[in-house]
Amino acid sequence: MIKKISHIGIAVKNLDEAVKFYEKLGLQVEAYEVVPSQKVKVAFIPIGDTRIELLSATSEDSPIAKFIEKKGEGIQHIALAVDDLPKALSEAEKQEIVLIDKEPRPGAHGADIAFLHPKSTNGVLLELCKEKH
Amino acid sequence: MIKKISHIGIAVKNLDEAVKFYEKLGLQVEAYEVVPSQKVKVAFIPIGDTRIELLSATSEDSPIAKFIEKKGEGIQHIALAVDDLPKALSEAEKQEIVLIDKEPRPGAHGADIAFLHPKSTNGVLLELCKEKH
Repeated sequence: MIKKISHIGIAVKNLDEAVKFYEKLGLQVEAYEVVPSQKVKVAFIPIGDTRIELLSATSEDSPIAKFIEKKGEGIQHIALAVDDLPKALSEAEKQEIVLIDKEPRPGAHGADIAFLHPKSTNGVLLELCKEKH
Repeated sequence: MIKKISHIGIAVKNLDEAVKFYEKLGLQVEAYEVVPSQKVKVAFIPIGDTRIELLSATSEDSPIAKFIEKKGEGIQHIALAVDDLPKALSEAEKQEIVLIDKEPRPGAHGADIAFLHPKSTNGVLLELCKEKH
């Protein structure tokens, strides 16, 4: 059901400064995207078969602004790539995994996404993600 | 310099329960290892070209016990795989990245590892890692 890690989401205060750090390590931003529904600007940095997504708030009421206020900058979520998201969600429910999103919703990069609840996942915010091809 | 994400380290209170959750998602533990120097027991779960490492404390003064006490369960670090760890550390220092470990030290799974300081990395505990082949 899980093919690979789609991406690791990292909440940052200053997107340009964070990008500079990853560039120092020799990594490159592939694309930027503003996601109005999530009030974030994202920088996509490919690494191996996955990528880092640097997430910065575009508004004070963005989920990323709230995350940073509560926990500070750092890793916010891990997204696992699946082939069939509705089926994966239905299987997760059968396994008594608590879902935040019972139905897929649009995410960054044209993907369909759904979050599992951290109370089912040892405190990790886990996203299931059907990537666009 | 960075080849791929070697692994994502997740701090958990109860290793068996955490493993059960990932098994519900269809993932499998490849190996377990106790690392006495870090006072942790680790479960390795391969996904795509990377893996999740579930980290549980074997002692109250384990770094993982302290992490959970301070921040709760959750993602503790990301490890980036490099070909030449001493060279990568020397290049990072030239870029004025602050290092926790100036020299490689032994990690789990036979790897050599070194941590970068979170003050250089937007709050993320980043490990550079030369995997054993």
